[in-house]
Amino acid sequence: MNSASEPWLATLRRRLLQRSPDALRADVMAALVVSVLLIPQSLAYAMLAGLPPQIGLYASLLPLLAYALWGSSPVLAVGPVAVLALMIAQALGALPPGVSPSEGALVLAAEVGLILLLAAALRLDALASLLSVPVLHGFETGATLTIALSQLPVLLGSPAQGFELPGLWQSAQSSGFAWHGWTAGFGLLACGLLLAGRRWLRPGLARLAPMGLLLLAMAAASAGDVASHGVALVGTLPPMDLHTSLPRTEAELWWNLAPSALLIALITYVSSLVVAESLARRRGEKVQAGAELRGLAAANLCAAFSGGMPVAGSFSRSVLLHEAGSRSRLSGVFVALFMGLAMGLLAGPLASLPKSVLAATILVAVLSGLKFQPFVEAWRYARAEALLMAGVAAIVLCWSVSAALALGVLGSIALLLQRTARPHVALIGRVPGTEHYRNVGRHAVQCQPGVLGLRIDESLLFTNARSLAEVVQSFLNHTEPGAEPMRRVVLLMSPVNSIDFSGLEALRELHSHLKRQGLRLDLSEVKGPVLDRLRAANWTRWFEGEVFLSHHQGMVQGQSNPVDKLVDES
Amino acid sequence: MNSASEPWLATLRRRLLQRSPDALRADVMAALVVSVLLIPQSLAYAMLAGLPPQIGLYASLLPLLAYALWGSSPVLAVGPVAVLALMIAQALGALPPGVSPSEGALVLAAEVGLILLLAAALRLDALASLLSVPVLHGFETGATLTIALSQLPVLLGSPAQGFELPGLWQSAQSSGFAWHGWTAGFGLLACGLLLAGRRWLRPGLARLAPMGLLLLAMAAASAGDVASHGVALVGTLPPMDLHTSLPRTEAELWWNLAPSALLIALITYVSSLVVAESLARRRGEKVQAGAELRGLAAANLCAAFSGGMPVAGSFSRSVLLHEAGSRSRLSGVFVALFMGLAMGLLAGPLASLPKSVLAATILVAVLSGLKFQPFVEAWRYARAEALLMAGVAAIVLCWSVSAALALGVLGSIALLLQRTARPHVALIGRVPGTEHYRNVGRHAVQCQPGVLGLRIDESLLFTNARSLAEVVQSFLNHTEPGAEPMRRVVLLMSPVNSIDFSGLEALRELHSHLKRQGLRLDLSEVKGPVLDRLRAANWTRWFEGEVFLSHHQGMVQGQSNPVDKLVDES
Repeated sequence: MNSASEPWLATLRRRLLQRSPDALRADVMAALVVSVLLIPQSLAYAMLAGLPPQIGLYASLLPLLAYALWGSSPVLAVGPVAVLALMIAQALGALPPGVSPSEGALVLAAEVGLILLLAAALRLDALASLLSVPVLHGFETGATLTIALSQLPVLLGSPAQGFELPGLWQSAQSSGFAWHGWTAGFGLLACGLLLAGRRWLRPGLARLAPMGLLLLAMAAASAGDVASHGVALVGTLPPMDLHTSLPRTEAELWWNLAPSALLIALITYVSSLVVAESLARRRGEKVQAGAELRGLAAANLCAAFSGGMPVAGSFSRSVLLHEAGSRSRLSGVFVALFMGLAMGLLAGPLASLPKSVLAATILVAVLSGLKFQPFVEAWRYARAEALLMAGVAAIVLCWSVSAALALGVLGSIALLLQRTARPHVALIGRVPGTEHYRNVGRHAVQCQPGVLGLRIDESLLFTNARSLAEVVQSFLNHTEPGAEPMRRVVLLMSPVNSIDFSGLEALRELHSHLKRQGLRLDLSEVKGPVLDRLRAANWTRWFEGEVFLSHHQGMVQGQSNPVDKLVDES
Repeated sequence: MNSASEPWLATLRRRLLQRSPDALRADVMAALVVSVLLIPQSLAYAMLAGLPPQIGLYASLLPLLAYALWGSSPVLAVGPVAVLALMIAQALGALPPGVSPSEGALVLAAEVGLILLLAAALRLDALASLLSVPVLHGFETGATLTIALSQLPVLLGSPAQGFELPGLWQSAQSSGFAWHGWTAGFGLLACGLLLAGRRWLRPGLARLAPMGLLLLAMAAASAGDVASHGVALVGTLPPMDLHTSLPRTEAELWWNLAPSALLIALITYVSSLVVAESLARRRGEKVQAGAELRGLAAANLCAAFSGGMPVAGSFSRSVLLHEAGSRSRLSGVFVALFMGLAMGLLAGPLASLPKSVLAATILVAVLSGLKFQPFVEAWRYARAEALLMAGVAAIVLCWSVSAALALGVLGSIALLLQRTARPHVALIGRVPGTEHYRNVGRHAVQCQPGVLGLRIDESLLFTNARSLAEVVQSFLNHTEPGAEPMRRVVLLMSPVNSIDFSGLEALRELHSHLKRQGLRLDLSEVKGPVLDRLRAANWTRWFEGEVFLSHHQGMVQGQSNPVDKLVDES
């Protein structure tokens, strides 16, 4: 980072001046298109998070400059996103008395920024791989449905409130499923217009629909004086003045919000990275995970000091930025400029915008991202993972985002442990006329009398170590009556990618177990890195068998070569 | 279990009468040898657990009968064990007022029994594999040192108390490192005699040494009236009467002790299973994990209802039972009978036994099991696992058994995740004149122009899925300048033991990533179970490459064969 040696405004100017006019024009145009979508989204997502709408605008200004300076992706559109808004709303649900939601959001943003910064310093970006595809997709689906449900009462003018299904249902029930005609009229009409726009307008024009709708609704509402009919409006906002200030620093408040901040940071990083990587692959570029962490950290710290809320990379806006031709992170700078302009112009008219129209914007935006195909595909491929996916979605919908993520990660790890604990084991024989050895149960192969060839399809790890000797013994017990007695066992080690210390003990135990029965243990096709480790542990002190370059050599030559003098394999 | 249809005493008699006189005599002799060791150990371990000594005797009677009826191993010597005694002492350290340690021990035993029963019913025996060798050995070493340290003050007549090192040190410091001459004299002499016995007596006689020492010390102490010199004696015990009674049933007490009970149950099961399995392998027998769970559950429930304490299989006594020639679980029944006899005879003389002599018995018994060799071997084999082992031992010694086990299991899982997250990847070429393909970095092999042959040494899992495309791309980027441009990538899949849903997505992503660059992705040597799953997911909708039986075919034939029409492999 050259930001250490020169002030950031100088860096910005230098980078700006390096660009060709063409590239500059492309970035400006892309920024304009994205800003038109970002204005309604930022207002709506702030409302979804339980915050005053202008907070969304504040979070779409300076944080974008910070990401442009320290981030890595030229097309990642940072700002308020729907899923984060839901997590923020849940985190701010239990604030101590005397702390406003806006103040809580600043502390959250500061914590998210510091956590991301710490993760960058400690190179913890690998932790992101804990979120498997089933957990991530289940989480997104559950969050989308939860967001949509939470907006229904706003859309219909019902007093019901809540984020998780049971609470929302109770709240709606206790209000007698009341709704308000005029409000619902505005909301449903807005939904209809947005859906019609998506269906019949050209993609380029369709993207302008949410902004157009906003202007239309503001005009209609102020012309018709809908407030007198009881339609809830956004209402007069405090004057829009972006000012920097420190978040509150009470230790207890920080401590209370820390678990939520940790999960928000994880989701911020993973969802942004997934978007950045998938777009980078289409563009033939590469994402630097470390720079991404630093960029997102800077954006969130900036949000914390300029009256915003936690921000992340948005999927829909990033795709838009890419398709509209953004060439560099300067497009983010221009988006920030356009947002500043919008802030000045919108302050007055926003007061007369019906809230149900903003709810319609959220509903249509999030539901268009809903995909059930992955559930079907996962069900076809692996039932347990499909159940995990559905379970995570259901927990988000009925309980909480934090519980869903925590249980989802534990579930993924449990499935991985179970996978390594019960490996597939095959008795293998020779494909006639070749040197290939295949599963006896699947192929017409020849077995060699007196020699048992086995393939265990897993690394030797603590999860399966205790059963190794037992598994081999069960194959020895199942030799046909009258067959030549076994003299050797040859383990084909090509599926054994590593052996941990428990696995080493198990191999030693198997060796002496076979030796007690007068059998010799040989290994074939041991991988180089695995053999390196065995040699470092001086394993020939106890291992009396041989290591063969190929399984065929092991089966056929078997008796003559001295231990460990053969060519190793890697 | 036939116990459901006939009363257990009838079962016992039937089993007794089935035996030949020879087998019966062998079991009786083995039982006698073990009883002579069990008497001093049961008294000492009860004292170590912070309980009156006779509780150890009670726990060595009916529980053994219960294990004989429902257990599976003919040589597992169930009863009080040192490690469990330490865990019981830590669990009973924070009992609510009004609950005596003996009452707490009964509740613990009941909970351990119920947990083991539940685990048997739900077939949870696989959970035992979560304890890796490093964790188990670290735990045993730490526990042994902790036990030895906690007995030092008793041996030397110091008022210091405590189980974890910092507490014990503080306690000793606040007592000014005081010690008592006569007590220490008895204790050190006893240690000396036991060590001398181990060194110079024949193994058969050495085993009688602890019992002989006990008798000698009782005689010497009562003859010389050492109590007047201030030597702490066991003191007059309540009359030995084994009676059945229910443990206390306050929900809060049960709830408080439940976490400790869970860990004691885990250690009870795993340590007993390790002993039973290692002896069964020597004897050519097989241990049934389910029956083992039921037997240990019955023994602990029995202990809970007959005034005992949690019990498990003892390593030292089980080895003794095996070496002394035990042939069936009847030997356990005879041990119980001998213990009943001892209870009647010992009640009076025990009063005059110096406590420091019992401490000497514990010290010599546990320290003889201390092994540092595994630390050295683990260090040579895998640094991270050696550190885990030492870390677990240190946490047991300085903090608590529960924390050590919990952190140890988490550490093992973290190492496993890290192992799968960063797989070894090798560019492979043909060993000249063969059809074998090996690592270019380790062997003199030939690469084929225009075709990239890669081997990724790991299953495709969520932990490594996100980096797959990146890893392959990095090999594509490193082709020599001027070389023929790449047309195909062939992945050798023999190390890929499974592909989870995240891995499937990664493979699909890699496929389209290569396709965008005009490259084709082919696979070779895909395992049968892996290919079955891919076909179930209807993968040919997107996969346009070929699957080859051998990597050689994949490299050489490459262009002609239609997808998925080739012989599959398993």
